[in-house]
Amino acid sequence: MKVGRVIGNVVSTIKHDFFEGERLLMVQLVDNGEDYDGYLICTDVVGAGSDETVLILDEGSSARTIYGIESAPIRSVIVGIIDDIHELDT
Amino acid sequence: MKVGRVIGNVVSTIKHDFFEGERLLMVQLVDNGEDYDGYLICTDVVGAGSDETVLILDEGSSARTIYGIESAPIRSVIVGIIDDIHELDT
Amino acid sequence: MKVGRVIGNVVSTIKHDFFEGERLLMVQLVDNGEDYDGYLICTDVVGAGSDETVLILDEGSSARTIYGIESAPIRSVIVGIIDDIHELDT
Amino acid sequence: MKVGRVIGNVVSTIKHDFFEGERLLMVQLVDNGEDYDGYLICTDVVGAGSDETVLILDEGSSARTIYGIESAPIRSVIVGIIDDIHELDT
Amino acid sequence: MKVGRVIGNVVSTIKHDFFEGERLLMVQLVDNGEDYDGYLICTDVVGAGSDETVLILDEGSSARTIYGIESAPIRSVIVGIIDDIHELDT
Repeated sequence: MKVGRVIGNVVSTIKHDFFEGERLLMVQLVDNGEDYDGYLICTDVVGAGSDETVLILDEGSSARTIYGIESAPIRSVIVGIIDDIHELDT
Repeated sequence: MKVGRVIGNVVSTIKHDFFEGERLLMVQLVDNGEDYDGYLICTDVVGAGSDETVLILDEGSSARTIYGIESAPIRSVIVGIIDDIHELDT
Repeated sequence: MKVGRVIGNVVSTIKHDFFEGERLLMVQLVDNGEDYDGYLICTDVVGAGSDETVLILDEGSSARTIYGIESAPIRSVIVGIIDDIHELDT
Repeated sequence: MKVGRVIGNVVSTIKHDFFEGERLLMVQLVDNGEDYDGYLICTDVVGAGSDETVLILDEGSSARTIYGIESAPIRSVIVGIIDDIHELDT
Repeated sequence: MKVGRVIGNVVSTIKHDFFEGERLLMVQLVDNGEDYDGYLICTDVVGAGSDETVLILDEGSSARTIYGIESAPIRSVIVGIIDDIHELDT
């Protein structure tokens, strides 16, 4: 799984039926607290807000499982809001 | 999912039967409103036109689900036309 | 899906049974008509020849579907020969 | 599969039910003994500790198999602790 | 599929049961006869030796198919030993 930061949302009128009523969030990928090159458009099952750091699951069959809809055409889902990332003692 | 821009279409006479009658679009990947290195050849279920910004689903089992054909040899599908991407207040 | 160019073939004596009798083609990935960093070893279901531009499907379950063999250990298959890529009017 | 090094853990209060009680470890990807650009957030089934070098499986259906939960929304799992990597005689 | 070169093996005492008795090989990815940035930890079904050039299948469900174990937590498998790569006449 990956860490990201919610930076925007996507407005789409014409889209596959599955996405009706789903928020489509633009999520910047983050490594070591810094943005890096890349993003994912995700749906959200935990109510993530603007600028929040989130846990992203980017895998189709997992995503479908979350929605309980076997035919959901979906791949990237926000599955957690990250409060903190602790560096372990080494 | 990813954001792309439709920049061309692929002409292929000899191809797997599934692709007969399907448009094969060349879609430039886009990040932060700018093109970047990469593209995908996609089929299209929303009627995307030239130069339109689109939502791309790049995952095999999802793609098959969309077509309702379990044996469809397909991975990348345009599933939405993007009107706008709003930056969230932070 | 991706675009590639057939540049070579792989000779392998010791291999998984599935690959017996299958051509294993070295396919250079292509973007915007130019080679770029990367290749895939593909099997071929459309009879692609040397130096031809091809449509590549790189996904396991799709690949198995094409062969109709549920246990085929395969991921990358040439599924079309590309005659031309037209730039759309913008 | 990939090699990584456990460098931190993720604290998340609001998350998908599956992750309740699961440690979410930040794992730096490693190549040739050196860190490189990239990380994965993994769950752990072998009890990996801080700074340990680990074997990572990053694939959804495998990950679900490990947990024996068909609906587990998971992709990246630590499946081994690496004691050493031997260079083979060449 | 990809081409690699066997450069080492991984020693792991604590690991998922599936890997008991399986060799875990460190395989350097190869392009155009030269090493490049990247490796995979693979199991092996063809008896690949040190420094041999191999055909790698990096896909979970294919890998499970090879082992005939539906619950095998595995993704990367060596499926062939490559004798030669011929450049095609162009």
